[in-house]
Amino acid sequence: MDLTEKTITRNIIYEGKIFKVIKDTVQLPDQSLAAREVVIHAGGAGILPIDKDNNVTLVRQYRAGASDVLTEICAGKLEPGEDPRQCAVRELEEELGLRAETVIPLGYIYPTPAYDSERTYIFLARGITAVSAHPDRDEFVQPVKMTLNDAVKEVCDGKITDAKTQTALLRAERILSGKD
Amino acid sequence: MDLTEKTITRNIIYEGKIFKVIKDTVQLPDQSLAAREVVIHAGGAGILPIDKDNNVTLVRQYRAGASDVLTEICAGKLEPGEDPRQCAVRELEEELGLRAETVIPLGYIYPTPAYDSERTYIFLARGITAVSAHPDRDEFVQPVKMTLNDAVKEVCDGKITDAKTQTALLRAERILSGKD
Repeated sequence: MDLTEKTITRNIIYEGKIFKVIKDTVQLPDQSLAAREVVIHAGGAGILPIDKDNNVTLVRQYRAGASDVLTEICAGKLEPGEDPRQCAVRELEEELGLRAETVIPLGYIYPTPAYDSERTYIFLARGITAVSAHPDRDEFVQPVKMTLNDAVKEVCDGKITDAKTQTALLRAERILSGKD
Repeated sequence: MDLTEKTITRNIIYEGKIFKVIKDTVQLPDQSLAAREVVIHAGGAGILPIDKDNNVTLVRQYRAGASDVLTEICAGKLEPGEDPRQCAVRELEEELGLRAETVIPLGYIYPTPAYDSERTYIFLARGITAVSAHPDRDEFVQPVKMTLNDAVKEVCDGKITDAKTQTALLRAERILSGKD
């Protein structure tokens, strides 16, 4: 059976700076109609730098959605039409002052596909060098360096709760152990 | 440094069925003011049943946010005040007709903590028995059974893109291999 829903009408409910909200009337596979409210977001890209000693650098920052300070991979919102890899590489340099010899794409996640269009692309970075002693860093973003093993432990202990960061760390562990 | 932002004023922009949108004025750590738009969501719970042969059952369904049919763990939105474990167990029975002897909590993820309050709690289910030949199943949700190994491969190949499902499968693999 084709599970696809077909959009019949679309209303823009809210146009914000970070996202907009639309309300659609859709036709279900059995031809009946239903309402769908969806957050429309341009997408994002995050990158996990891993140095030669298998240390990762993450960032701590306050997040308005979570109402808490979280530990996450360095990430940013895509500019319209921007290539996710370029976005990730830019954030790595601006936020952490790091450059990577090799950038490995790990695909993307849909964080909340039921009601949000956002795709977050995830990358690993290897061959890390510091390119700036004073990156153009938001003073409210603090870098944190730890071993990949400790970071994975923080995922499993419930200390690192950000979805893209969990995927990046768990995938990185598999790749570095030769599983992937 | 305390990275916390303090809410000064809050306006409700939209009150929908699945989420609402608020716009806050917040005070940053340096005392300056900034605007924050946030999606407020009651949270969700998802559950990954793994049978004695290490087969998992996932669901395929159309997702309005992704505009696509995705493969995900069985999940639902929390009712106000609902215990996440109860929600997960209920969804497992209603959506898949399965009951679990053991339910293992894997904590929660913030799918998009920058601008969405949603927490998604994740559980593993072991000791699976079928309790209903005809679960109270939405006819547009299709169950899919595969080995845990194949499901993890679909994560790594970019075929399973839902964030909570990636975390559930990658954590399950670690746990079943005795790492966690």
